[in-house]
Amino acid sequence: MVVLRSYVSGSWSSPDDEGAPLRDAVTGEEVARISSAGIDMGAALDHGRRVGGPVLRELTFHQRAALLKALASHLREHREELYALSARTGATLGDSRFDVDGGIGVLFGYAGKGRRELPNDRILVEGDVEPLGKGGTFTGQHLCTPSLGVAVQINAFNFPVWGPLEKLAPAFLAGVPSLVKPASQTAYLTARLIELVVESGILPEGSVQLVCGEPRDLLDHLTEQDIVAFTGSASTARLLRTHPAVVGNAVRFNAEADSLNCSILGPDATPGTPEFDLFVEQLVTEMTVKAGQKCTAIRRALVPASLIDDVAAAARERLASVTVGNPAVPEVRMGALAGLGQREEVRRSLKALLDAARVVSGDPGRVEVVDADAERGAFMAPILLRADDADRAEPHEVEAFGPVSTLLPYEGTARAVALAARGRGSLAGSVVTADAGFARDVVLGAAPWHGRLLVLNREDAGESTGHGSPLPALVHGGPGRAGGGEELGGIRGVVHHMRRTAVQAGPATLTAITGRWVPGTDRTVTREHPFRRHLEDLRVGDTAVGGPRAVTLADVEHFAEFTGDTFYAHMDEDAARANPFFGGRVAHGYLIVSFAAGLFVDPAPGPVLANYGLENLRFLTPVNPGDELTVTLTAKQITPREGADYGEVRWDTDVTNQDGASVAKYDVLTLVARRPTHG
Amino acid sequence: MVVLRSYVSGSWSSPDDEGAPLRDAVTGEEVARISSAGIDMGAALDHGRRVGGPVLRELTFHQRAALLKALASHLREHREELYALSARTGATLGDSRFDVDGGIGVLFGYAGKGRRELPNDRILVEGDVEPLGKGGTFTGQHLCTPSLGVAVQINAFNFPVWGPLEKLAPAFLAGVPSLVKPASQTAYLTARLIELVVESGILPEGSVQLVCGEPRDLLDHLTEQDIVAFTGSASTARLLRTHPAVVGNAVRFNAEADSLNCSILGPDATPGTPEFDLFVEQLVTEMTVKAGQKCTAIRRALVPASLIDDVAAAARERLASVTVGNPAVPEVRMGALAGLGQREEVRRSLKALLDAARVVSGDPGRVEVVDADAERGAFMAPILLRADDADRAEPHEVEAFGPVSTLLPYEGTARAVALAARGRGSLAGSVVTADAGFARDVVLGAAPWHGRLLVLNREDAGESTGHGSPLPALVHGGPGRAGGGEELGGIRGVVHHMRRTAVQAGPATLTAITGRWVPGTDRTVTREHPFRRHLEDLRVGDTAVGGPRAVTLADVEHFAEFTGDTFYAHMDEDAARANPFFGGRVAHGYLIVSFAAGLFVDPAPGPVLANYGLENLRFLTPVNPGDELTVTLTAKQITPREGADYGEVRWDTDVTNQDGASVAKYDVLTLVARRPTHG
Repeated sequence: MVVLRSYVSGSWSSPDDEGAPLRDAVTGEEVARISSAGIDMGAALDHGRRVGGPVLRELTFHQRAALLKALASHLREHREELYALSARTGATLGDSRFDVDGGIGVLFGYAGKGRRELPNDRILVEGDVEPLGKGGTFTGQHLCTPSLGVAVQINAFNFPVWGPLEKLAPAFLAGVPSLVKPASQTAYLTARLIELVVESGILPEGSVQLVCGEPRDLLDHLTEQDIVAFTGSASTARLLRTHPAVVGNAVRFNAEADSLNCSILGPDATPGTPEFDLFVEQLVTEMTVKAGQKCTAIRRALVPASLIDDVAAAARERLASVTVGNPAVPEVRMGALAGLGQREEVRRSLKALLDAARVVSGDPGRVEVVDADAERGAFMAPILLRADDADRAEPHEVEAFGPVSTLLPYEGTARAVALAARGRGSLAGSVVTADAGFARDVVLGAAPWHGRLLVLNREDAGESTGHGSPLPALVHGGPGRAGGGEELGGIRGVVHHMRRTAVQAGPATLTAITGRWVPGTDRTVTREHPFRRHLEDLRVGDTAVGGPRAVTLADVEHFAEFTGDTFYAHMDEDAARANPFFGGRVAHGYLIVSFAAGLFVDPAPGPVLANYGLENLRFLTPVNPGDELTVTLTAKQITPREGADYGEVRWDTDVTNQDGASVAKYDVLTLVARRPTHG
Repeated sequence: MVVLRSYVSGSWSSPDDEGAPLRDAVTGEEVARISSAGIDMGAALDHGRRVGGPVLRELTFHQRAALLKALASHLREHREELYALSARTGATLGDSRFDVDGGIGVLFGYAGKGRRELPNDRILVEGDVEPLGKGGTFTGQHLCTPSLGVAVQINAFNFPVWGPLEKLAPAFLAGVPSLVKPASQTAYLTARLIELVVESGILPEGSVQLVCGEPRDLLDHLTEQDIVAFTGSASTARLLRTHPAVVGNAVRFNAEADSLNCSILGPDATPGTPEFDLFVEQLVTEMTVKAGQKCTAIRRALVPASLIDDVAAAARERLASVTVGNPAVPEVRMGALAGLGQREEVRRSLKALLDAARVVSGDPGRVEVVDADAERGAFMAPILLRADDADRAEPHEVEAFGPVSTLLPYEGTARAVALAARGRGSLAGSVVTADAGFARDVVLGAAPWHGRLLVLNREDAGESTGHGSPLPALVHGGPGRAGGGEELGGIRGVVHHMRRTAVQAGPATLTAITGRWVPGTDRTVTREHPFRRHLEDLRVGDTAVGGPRAVTLADVEHFAEFTGDTFYAHMDEDAARANPFFGGRVAHGYLIVSFAAGLFVDPAPGPVLANYGLENLRFLTPVNPGDELTVTLTAKQITPREGADYGEVRWDTDVTNQDGASVAKYDVLTLVARRPTHG
């Protein structure tokens, strides 16, 4: 029998003992054995800190993003193998795709976000420079630097591929090594995933480790710079959160726990509307995908009282056609739960729910299965309940972590919001309505209780990924019962793995620290125009000054005529004088930036390839005819692109008048070539 | 004797018992008595949730900001009274200003940030719209909504005014009511502060409550939407963090604990340099301000080994001139500790430190005081220690929360960074150097261990607020020993009091929810030009379309000549063709935006007062001579200004060519007048 190996301290290690059996969810056969006996957990964490962390921190965000992308492509080539193992967890091919392709999608998602939204740098400069003194000699800037510890990632059994990858991707991009601890039940799939990761050699050694089996004393070795990201039950979350090393060292702890998510049908969505069908279809999908073992699945279906009979009937009809059985059989729509123990737990919860609800569809006691043994495999029928007294506690408190959902009636928007809140914190909620006002009221009312809210209707149904799907660009987590945590959310998930530090310094010192030119730092007026410098030769602070150039009344009138912009403030002295901001006729803002470009541009072909945009333009002082403009252009940020022969350069641009007052400030964005390579 | 009252559930309440005495730090006389006996803590929290929260949430960010500003002005008028009470805590006038003016400064700071950086709205739309599907019908947006609970603010004794105000300001701005729980020792000052707040009537009822005395069962009543912000000792933080209601409900918990902050002298800062003097002066200041009772104070002074004798001598000399005594006496530079118990604790810690260090300055056993009784008042001399073995644990582990600091020698940058990290997490650190490279290496190396880092040198010394001063615009908190929390940081501190929710919907639905026009939503081409609509009449989605207008080669050449922008891509067909992005001569980007303005502008005087700026301009497709431009301008966001007769309108601007491809996209920012009032 295969005994799962762990990957710690740079090598694969087998346990000291024979381990406990892990069983196929469909057949009950033993798949593998698992144990963490003999693993030196302290050494593993130390390996991550001493070997993985330093190597990762040497890479820039863009370099890490490129590795994530390569890893995603590599795993995509091995999908079939993962699907096959996934089937043994009870998953249909659709379920496996949700898990495997979903996880690979998170890697691609973070690779893309990292390249587009993070600098090609090792630190993240966050937010604007904060002026801290009136004289401009004291400034503040927030920096994010990678935590120096290990991200200990404790995953749930239900997503053996997506779970580890959605935690690993943002940690890796942040520059923090991961230690992956899968739930035992389905650890054989995660173990194979991490084998593929390690064997690929794509990620640097020490950046990913794997512990199969009990965590034992793992948490005892946590220090201030480590991070724990946990997905699983609320009771385990409580235990981990209060672990002495977590509390004593103020270890950053993130929990994502199952919750009693609701889906709300709008009163407009009567039978015959697309929204009625979307609601019922989504409900059935959420009940049956992964056999309802999703922490985001719909547990409570809130339906206008006048529509509950219709919804019950429509859902019953759809559920009747759900084939349960061996997930390897193509027509099977719902496979097995992850194990017999899991089924026992669901049955216990179901019993508690039945105190407050009755069965609409499905037989809690038996299920017909295709090509499988209904008792040896962890099968059960999807069960839809109905609780006509929506005030009963059970539907809002008891979670059956399987294919179980409860219909609850409501009347009025406020009541729907109040019932949603009875879940005391949810990962996800959905509102199915074509009434934008109802959607708005429910979303804004329920938002404080939810990490994510989906409005589903004919507008987005074609592209919607559905109630139950967390996406890498959006936060995943929720308050209260859902654990109070937050994962993913694009770059937010990266920042969770970094330390934010407020740095206070003079502007020149801040420039030296951040590598970005901070206003107030001396400018270097270069002998040749800085537009003649290739990317490698350019330094932040390199400056061109152009002008002065007078703006005449004739210029203003000509520009108005040429462009068609004959706004009265440019054309009519009396009307302009009556305007609260202008003392009389003023030059066009677009004239100012156009003249400025004429003053700073270097005409001949050279390293500056294009001006691709402009940011943060503010017109600060009106320009009256007769004023003289000078422009000062300073290289502010230089971002080489990985694998390209050019990079981006952001130029601080300050257009001043003859009194030295700024009339316009903005950032000019250019693409600048690297030095040509000869040879 | 005065018994401190609490302000709970809408009224002032006196305790059921006689309470415990609070003593004047200088004379030992009883100042007041304190007890929370008889307070219904559950009812108080409920009052905040039911009365304070809903009223606060009805206000916009700008309205709340205006109330904070009014409150700040009101408190400023009562500063003298607060100074007088503050003196009884042992504070000199300088110390009191630090506390009182500092606290009022936080209110002003948040009032300003709220007005400038938050929308005049009740929800905060965070980040960009996330496209979630290729067809543009499924989009995501993060929203922040106020938590529906109470912010329970447990403050430390050392800043009885600044402490409560720095917690209250961001909570209030977020729309979350506060319950202020001062440390008993100096609660009489906080109680008077909150009396002034309540009596002013400026803040809505329920938005601020005060509990003087023991918290008793306060935390037992916490629910999922409440927030606990704690400042104090690490041991109390541990207790609160593991409270069953905090853990069980995943209550957001923020701790800010004292830490062993360090200040690092650069090797360049030899005697005679401004930095040498700045370092010594700052060290003495941090030791003596508030008698060293600042959680940000310098406990460890890291000095190049070759300079430690010089630093010791210079510091000794300065410390010798520090007058200790009755803080009411003008020449007194350092007052008393907050109480005799506090002094006992400092003496105990000092004893532990003396195992690893020797005294450079000050007599731990006695102190000369001016106009006070050195034993009845909680006086002690400032004590500077020196530990020549910087590897000893004590200087990095034992915090004497008083006028005590230890000099430690280091050699080399890496060693300085490593010693800084020995504090295992600090609120604040400083580096005193004129060497920008040293500053950069220390800041980037030490950042993961620090919430805030100051670089002090001749560049910023004139305006620097110093090592020990948290500022409202910058985060305050730190990892590990410092509690792992984060307060302030400008709008970040507001967001801490809100729930972030990812909303997924079609663009039109998202527009209805956020009140901002999301691209993909139908545009309303209005009968009259939308520039003719006053602020109240304008709706997001209102659209003007202008064009088409052909761009001729003559236009390009004329624009080049007129502006002086003769960049080769506009002027030279062959050179333009060689550019990797252009297929031949292209129109200037500034020509495109200028022509676009000519196409969308409405010339006659009207509600649109000015175009004050432009954001996020990107040139997407080259415009070649002969192309025809059309511009579509759509009202995207409408922000009325409180107390002004105009507001800001942001217009989505899309310039397309004859094939419908976008050639440029940007936001035009305008000021638009409200309807004139007649009468």
